[in-house]
Amino acid sequence: MEQRRLRVGIAGLGRAFSLMLPTFLGDHRVELVAACDPREAARQQFAIDFCASTYADIQGLASDERVEAIYIASPHQFHAEHAEIAAAHGKHVLVEKPMALTLEECERMINACKAAGVSLIVGHCHSFDTPYLSTKNLIQSGQFGAVKMIQAINFTDYLYRPRRPEELSTAEGGGAVFSQAAHQVDIVRMLAGAPAIRLRAEVGRWDSARPTEGAYSALLWFANGAFASLSYNGYGHFDSDEWTDWTGEMGDQKDPSSYGGARRRLNTLKSAADEAHLKASGTYGGDTYKPLPRNSVGAAHKHQHFGPVVVSCENADLRPLPDAIYVYGNEAKERRPLALPAVPRAEVIDELYAAAVLGQAPLHDGRWAKDTLKICLAILESSEKRSDIAL
Amino acid sequence: MEQRRLRVGIAGLGRAFSLMLPTFLGDHRVELVAACDPREAARQQFAIDFCASTYADIQGLASDERVEAIYIASPHQFHAEHAEIAAAHGKHVLVEKPMALTLEECERMINACKAAGVSLIVGHCHSFDTPYLSTKNLIQSGQFGAVKMIQAINFTDYLYRPRRPEELSTAEGGGAVFSQAAHQVDIVRMLAGAPAIRLRAEVGRWDSARPTEGAYSALLWFANGAFASLSYNGYGHFDSDEWTDWTGEMGDQKDPSSYGGARRRLNTLKSAADEAHLKASGTYGGDTYKPLPRNSVGAAHKHQHFGPVVVSCENADLRPLPDAIYVYGNEAKERRPLALPAVPRAEVIDELYAAAVLGQAPLHDGRWAKDTLKICLAILESSEKRSDIAL
Ligand SMILES: NC(=O)c1ccc[n+]([C@@H]2O[C@H](COP(=O)([O-])OP(=O)(O)OC[C@H]3O[C@@H](n4cnc5c(N)ncnc54)[C@H](O)[C@@H]3O)[C@@H](O)[C@H]2O)c1
Ligand SMILES: NC(=O)c1ccc[n+]([C@@H]2O[C@H](COP(=O)([O-])OP(=O)(O)OC[C@H]3O[C@@H](n4cnc5c(N)ncnc54)[C@H](O)[C@@H]3O)[C@@H](O)[C@H]2O)c1
Repeated sequence: MEQRRLRVGIAGLGRAFSLMLPTFLGDHRVELVAACDPREAARQQFAIDFCASTYADIQGLASDERVEAIYIASPHQFHAEHAEIAAAHGKHVLVEKPMALTLEECERMINACKAAGVSLIVGHCHSFDTPYLSTKNLIQSGQFGAVKMIQAINFTDYLYRPRRPEELSTAEGGGAVFSQAAHQVDIVRMLAGAPAIRLRAEVGRWDSARPTEGAYSALLWFANGAFASLSYNGYGHFDSDEWTDWTGEMGDQKDPSSYGGARRRLNTLKSAADEAHLKASGTYGGDTYKPLPRNSVGAAHKHQHFGPVVVSCENADLRPLPDAIYVYGNEAKERRPLALPAVPRAEVIDELYAAAVLGQAPLHDGRWAKDTLKICLAILESSEKRSDIAL
Repeated sequence: MEQRRLRVGIAGLGRAFSLMLPTFLGDHRVELVAACDPREAARQQFAIDFCASTYADIQGLASDERVEAIYIASPHQFHAEHAEIAAAHGKHVLVEKPMALTLEECERMINACKAAGVSLIVGHCHSFDTPYLSTKNLIQSGQFGAVKMIQAINFTDYLYRPRRPEELSTAEGGGAVFSQAAHQVDIVRMLAGAPAIRLRAEVGRWDSARPTEGAYSALLWFANGAFASLSYNGYGHFDSDEWTDWTGEMGDQKDPSSYGGARRRLNTLKSAADEAHLKASGTYGGDTYKPLPRNSVGAAHKHQHFGPVVVSCENADLRPLPDAIYVYGNEAKERRPLALPAVPRAEVIDELYAAAVLGQAPLHDGRWAKDTLKICLAILESSEKRSDIAL
C-alpha cells in the first residue's frame, strides 16, 4: 500500500534547505507544497521547481491550509518565533539545529507544540546519521557491556565558509559552539545513553577577523558513569576526514588535494556584506547556486557523519564510519557494513513521518534538543567561569 | 675526531632496558660497562654479552669506578632511592619515566644530583622522539604563530601486556596515569611551550581483573593561553596506530591483522605470579627473551611515537608523524619528511652525552620531569575530587 505523503512547507530557503533538498526530492513520504523566504529569487525558484505557493513570511506560510508540517530552516534567532507561529496554526514542526538560542526559547517552543497537539522534532542533526543510530542500537543490545568512555573529534573548515554577520557573533548565536557542538554533543549524548550531569570545557577564539568560537574541547560526564572527551576545531587546517576514509560530512568522496578552498575563496572578499551575499548567492535561488543533480545522491554516497567517534564499552570499542561500524572486541575486530543510503538523511523523514503521520514519539524531540542546547551553553559558561558546570 | 665514550651502568635489566638496548648497542657515544639486577639470569646474560661486571644491587653498581652514568630502569618505586645512591657516588643519572611516585621523591632526587654536581635526566620518554622535538622547533621558529590548542590521543593494549602485581595497583604507582600519561603529558607540555597552570581530568578503571587506571581524558591549560585535550585508552580494543600509518610505538611496521594478541596471551595465564614470570621471562636474560637483532634497527624503522597529536597554531596545524611532519597552513598543506633514525632513541643519548660529557643543561631534567609527575598526580586528584586542580 502506498503511504500517504506528508505535505511540508519550508521556512527559509537557504543553505540548510539546499542540504535537505535531496532528501525532500528523494523521499516519497513527503512532498513540498509551500515555502517562505524574504529573498524573492529563492521564492521564484521554489515556485518554478515545485509549482507551489510561496510567501514572504512565516505568517503566510503557516496560514496555508495545504501545509501539514513546517521545516524551519531560517537563521537560529528565528527558530523560536517560527516554531510558535507554526504550532499556533496546527502545523507539525521540524526545526533546524540549534533548536534556539536560549533555554527559555526552547521551553516556549515545547509548550507551544504541546498546547497545539503537534509534533516537535529538531533536525537535521548528525545524530540522525545511520552510523550513529546503529551504534546506539548495538550498545543497547547489551552485548558489549556498559559504555565507559567516548572520544569525538572533528577538524573542519567551518569558520571559513561564507557566513552571515550574526554567524560570527557569539552573542547572536554565532560560532562553533552553537552551530557545531549542536551536532557533536547530540551524537555523544545519544551514544552515552544516559543524562549528562556535568561538564568542563574550554573554547578557542583566535582569529580576530572571525571573532567567535572556532574551536572547543570538553569533558562530559553522564549519570551512568560514562565520560566523554569532545574536541572540535573549525580553523580550516588539519581535516579529520582523513580518519574517515576521506568521506566528507555529506557522505561525499573528498579530494584531499583540494586543500584550503574555503580560506582562498574568503580572501577574495572585501566586506561582511560581500560575504553574506556570497553565502546567499550560493544557496537556493541564488546566482551561483548549483543544485545537487538528483542522481548524484544515492548509491555512490556513503552515510553522512560528523567526525571520528570511538565509543569504549566494557568489552569492545565501537567506531561508526560512513559505510560500516567497526567493532573492536576482546577476541576479534569486525567490520559490520552498513547498507548505503538510497536517499540522504532519510532518517529525518523516518522520524518526522512517524511522528506527524503515525503518531509515534520522536527521539529528537524538544526536551531532547533543549538538553543538547543546555550542554552547548554550558561549554561557553564553563570556559568563561573556569569551572565545572552541573547540568 | 672520535668522541670519547661515556661509560654507562644499568640498574634493572628488564623490559625498559631491552627497549633501550638497541640504542646502547647502536650509539657509539656510550658503552655499557656494568649492571645490577636481582635476577641472576639477567646478570649472567649481561656478563656474557658485554664482558662487564654485574652486581646484585645498586650499591655494588654505584661503587663501580668505571661507571660514569647510571641508567635507572628498575621499577618506579626504586627510582628515587637508586638516583640518590647513584648521585652519592658521583654518577650521572638517567632515570626512566615516571621520574618517581611522589613530588617529595622528585625533590630528593633533584637535590641529591645537585649536591653531587651530576646531571639528572629523565627518560627515555616519548617526548624525546624526533617528530615531537622537530615540531617544537618549528613552533619556536614563530612562523606559525602562537600555539592555541593541542589534541593528543592514544588507544593501545597497554593494560593487557604482562605486568608485575604492583603495576596493576595505583597506590603502588601502577596504571596508565603513572606509566602512560608520563609520556603523553610530557609531549603536550613540550609542544605547548609554556607552564601548565590548570587541569581537569577523568580516569577510567573498568576491568576489575586489572584494578587500576586503563584510561583517562584530560583538559590542560597553559600560561600562554593554549589548552590541550588528552585522551588515553589502554583497554586493547581500537588501536590508534591506524591513524599513524600502522607504525607502532617503537617505529615498527605493525600488522593490523594480528589483533588482540595481548589479551589472548594473558588469557592463558592462571595467576599474578604466572604473569610476573611471563613478563620477566620475556625480557633480557629470560627464557623466552628474543633480542632485537642488531640490524633489525636502523633504516627500515621510522621514528617512535606516542599516538596522534595535532598542534593548532594561529596559522597552521602541525601533525608530527613517525616519518614526517605535516604542516597544514593557511594556503597549502605540506609534508616535511624527517630523516629516518639510524639508531632508535639516539635523542636520549644526545641529551645524556651533552650533559654528562659536554656539560650542557638537559631539556628533560629533574625539574622538568617533576612538573610532568605533578600533572599526572593532578589527573588522579582531579578525577577523585571532581574539580579543577591548579598546578
Ligand atoms: N543540519 C545541517 O546540516 C545544517 C546546515 C546548515 C545550516 N543549518 C541550520 O539552518 C539554519 C539556517 O542556516 P543556513 O546556513 O541555511 O543560513 P542561510 O543564510 O543560508 O539560510 C537562511 C535562509 O532563511 C531566510 N530567512 C531569513 N530570515 C527569514 C525569516 N524571517 N523567515 C523565513 N526565512 C528567512 C534567508 O533568506 C535564507 O534563505 C541555521 O539554524 C543553521 O544552524 C543546519
Ligand atoms: N620508556 C619506555 O619506553 C619504558 C618502557 C617500559 C618500562 N619503562 C620504565 O622502566 C621501569 C621498569 O619497568 P619495566 O617494564 O622494565 O619492568 P621490568 O619488570 O621488565 O624490569 C625491571 C627490572 O628491574 C629489576 N629490578 C627489580 N628490583 C630491582 C632493584 N632493587 N635494583 C635493580 N634492579 C631491580 C627486575 O629484576 C627487572 O629486571 C619503569 O619505571 C617503567 O615505567 C619505560
